[in-house]
Amino acid sequence: MPKPTPRNNLIFDLDGTLVDSVYQHVLAWREALDALGIHLSNWKIHRRIGMSDELLLHSFMRDAGRKFSKAETQQLKKSQTESYFRRSSEIQPLPGAKELLHALEEAEVPHAIGTSSNRERAQPSLKMLGITSNATVITGDEIKNAKPNPDLFLACAKKLRVNIEDCVVIGDSTWDLLAAQRARALGVGLLCGGFGEEELNRAGAYRVYADPADLLVHLDELGVRIDVARSSKTSAGIDEKAGRAA
Amino acid sequence: MPKPTPRNNLIFDLDGTLVDSVYQHVLAWREALDALGIHLSNWKIHRRIGMSDELLLHSFMRDAGRKFSKAETQQLKKSQTESYFRRSSEIQPLPGAKELLHALEEAEVPHAIGTSSNRERAQPSLKMLGITSNATVITGDEIKNAKPNPDLFLACAKKLRVNIEDCVVIGDSTWDLLAAQRARALGVGLLCGGFGEEELNRAGAYRVYADPADLLVHLDELGVRIDVARSSKTSAGIDEKAGRAA
Repeated sequence: MPKPTPRNNLIFDLDGTLVDSVYQHVLAWREALDALGIHLSNWKIHRRIGMSDELLLHSFMRDAGRKFSKAETQQLKKSQTESYFRRSSEIQPLPGAKELLHALEEAEVPHAIGTSSNRERAQPSLKMLGITSNATVITGDEIKNAKPNPDLFLACAKKLRVNIEDCVVIGDSTWDLLAAQRARALGVGLLCGGFGEEELNRAGAYRVYADPADLLVHLDELGVRIDVARSSKTSAGIDEKAGRAA
Repeated sequence: MPKPTPRNNLIFDLDGTLVDSVYQHVLAWREALDALGIHLSNWKIHRRIGMSDELLLHSFMRDAGRKFSKAETQQLKKSQTESYFRRSSEIQPLPGAKELLHALEEAEVPHAIGTSSNRERAQPSLKMLGITSNATVITGDEIKNAKPNPDLFLACAKKLRVNIEDCVVIGDSTWDLLAAQRARALGVGLLCGGFGEEELNRAGAYRVYADPADLLVHLDELGVRIDVARSSKTSAGIDEKAGRAA
């Protein structure tokens, strides 16, 4: 029997998990699609955020009932990025995101960020979180297949020099949790991307928390040993009343 | 024993049920709150859309950890409405909404719309759906307590001159379904407002459909007898592939 190993390494999704950007991503896709005369509902776009662009566009084609040309696909990606950037003044870190990352840094808990987004779209969010170039971040353009394929999380574990089986993956979408399962990591869901709690549970979440602030005060449930109460720096911004969603 | 009665009367919610406006409502509240230095996450606002303004603001106060003054409350409502109207060019009817209402009209199925929104904010959506002044519409400002109180749906039934027990209430939010239960109507959920299927089921939905187009082709499951296939006018705009969400 192999001896039990700790799961002390954390891999985070970015949009909807650390940064409150999902709703802007949705409306940016909607705007880009509308410009090409493709009318999809916001909720259908919402439920696909977090997927690789390639799969996302594939699902849009199914909904639209037709294929998009290569030119249309390129136009959609370009328009979405532009529309998203126009909305960027509305985007903020999620409650507790900076405090959580800071606490992990202080406690020397290995952690990484793996996002299906490309580096260009992810950069403002990373900056907003105060993430330096030293941090372990893998973006969709750095691997072959983004989520729900496991590649992103496997690349994060490799860069952290840890086993993926010793990682907890934290994400707001079913695609994060599917990718976590496929990678053999433990999946944890956050509600702050707008998915329902049961959707995340069904997709394999071991636990579901409201947002990064809620996760930070429950890190013990993941076996991560950080004395949150003692760290004055980290407890400052925590909303103690956040709790789990009803 | 009273004899079984038909449930052939339909009462609809508006935002997120017939019109794809929830995501814009969310960001408009977010913008209004931000302007007052109150920073709430989009998902928390999303999960309250459909409530009466009074309860919505009450829940925001809980999240913000402080009371809002009367002046702040008025400012929030005013800013939200302005921000929502600025976003109105992005808003469209949900797939099948117009066709569904037309089919009910043609088949003389009594139906009404009950929305927590006030008349001013609801008017553009009603116009977009082609709803005339003859239609039965009750807005939040016409009754004492909007959803999740049952008043709106009770007022709709009264105006239709039918028993509320003979009505099916169709909505996208848990507040619609709670109000339906409290009114003693049968609740049916739609996914197109962005709530999860299980959230709607838990809140008492007898059935959950994807959107109005999906509901239109499943009206038989509610005991409503309309020959959709034969009505060329109504079947034109229906996405037959919509189906139920996975």
